[in-house]
Amino acid sequence: MTPEKTVARLSLYRRFLKIAKEDGVDNVYSHQLAEMVRSTPAQVRRDLMILGYNGSPQKGYDVAELIKHIDTFFNTEKIIDVILVGVGNIGRALLSYFRDGKSHIKIIASFDKDETKAGRVINNSRCYAMDDLKNIVAENNVKTAILSVPATDAQSIADILVENGIRGILNFAPTRLKVPSDVFVEDVDITMNMEKVIYFSAGKKK
Amino acid sequence: MTPEKTVARLSLYRRFLKIAKEDGVDNVYSHQLAEMVRSTPAQVRRDLMILGYNGSPQKGYDVAELIKHIDTFFNTEKIIDVILVGVGNIGRALLSYFRDGKSHIKIIASFDKDETKAGRVINNSRCYAMDDLKNIVAENNVKTAILSVPATDAQSIADILVENGIRGILNFAPTRLKVPSDVFVEDVDITMNMEKVIYFSAGKKK
Repeated sequence: MTPEKTVARLSLYRRFLKIAKEDGVDNVYSHQLAEMVRSTPAQVRRDLMILGYNGSPQKGYDVAELIKHIDTFFNTEKIIDVILVGVGNIGRALLSYFRDGKSHIKIIASFDKDETKAGRVINNSRCYAMDDLKNIVAENNVKTAILSVPATDAQSIADILVENGIRGILNFAPTRLKVPSDVFVEDVDITMNMEKVIYFSAGKKK
Repeated sequence: MTPEKTVARLSLYRRFLKIAKEDGVDNVYSHQLAEMVRSTPAQVRRDLMILGYNGSPQKGYDVAELIKHIDTFFNTEKIIDVILVGVGNIGRALLSYFRDGKSHIKIIASFDKDETKAGRVINNSRCYAMDDLKNIVAENNVKTAILSVPATDAQSIADILVENGIRGILNFAPTRLKVPSDVFVEDVDITMNMEKVIYFSAGKKK
């Protein structure tokens, strides 16, 4: 099982490798990748060993090859269908964000408990009533959901998601979800991030 | 200097304490707080010691008192003025997010290099041209910025922010900013978060 932090770094490596490739860079060294993700060269080499791909001490890693290996790791040849629940401010922004990207992530349907939104197309995504969730998730074999509802609704909706076979949740609600141990939750907590920045902006250095 | 992870946890503790308070809970124990932030009771006690506030083994921590101490730590009696650069999808969502919240964080001005946006009020925030940034930051003594521009613009705009006295950046651009060591950057990288969730949704458990 690949550790969570390694998975996160692999995603970041690829981001920087793609930029490097566009800039015409053919080879990178572990110390360069380390700098990009604020890690150590030894850590980079351990991470990349998981891919079964090794660089050479002389030339480092081949940029194109390394991107290919990370793509395979993330299975990005395949389009991944996800759903989004909660078409408020953050939900709408995420619909636009994933629509604009050249990524392999596709939001195939959005849901909102506000029934006046059901049937409407909001930011290019059709919004459905919560009652339709079960069928859409089952028919499309969706395993991943974005949760962008208010904190007060988050747990009850997470329960519905889990019941219907969702196994990973990107959670924007400022609450700690209780889910079974085989369900993965990634929290994005913007207020907490902002409070950290404000705290350290005030001259209290790390 | 308080470590970054401690600052993050203090923000989370307060979130949960406020929910507990609304539910009529008067006292909490370190093991309850630990569960909420996925940490250990010993870590919670170390974190709270920074506030100069101790619970009792019998009654735990007084919820109202603890909230007060964390407020003082974050200086939330004071409204904190921040600016936002990049009024695209994510930028607009953040303007709504911080407008709606009952938080002490206030986005006093937004900026966009698209001059057709200058002078317009977008999501209740007046949008200014980049040329106005210097004066607005200086006049309001702003130390903190939200950066929600495309990756290609992020570094050049970060340089402008730093030149004009910004000391903390909440960065939504998928790029690693280079800033002086006395400037704090917090990255929010939604694509990376999403890739992690998809990876672990596919049955590769932690």
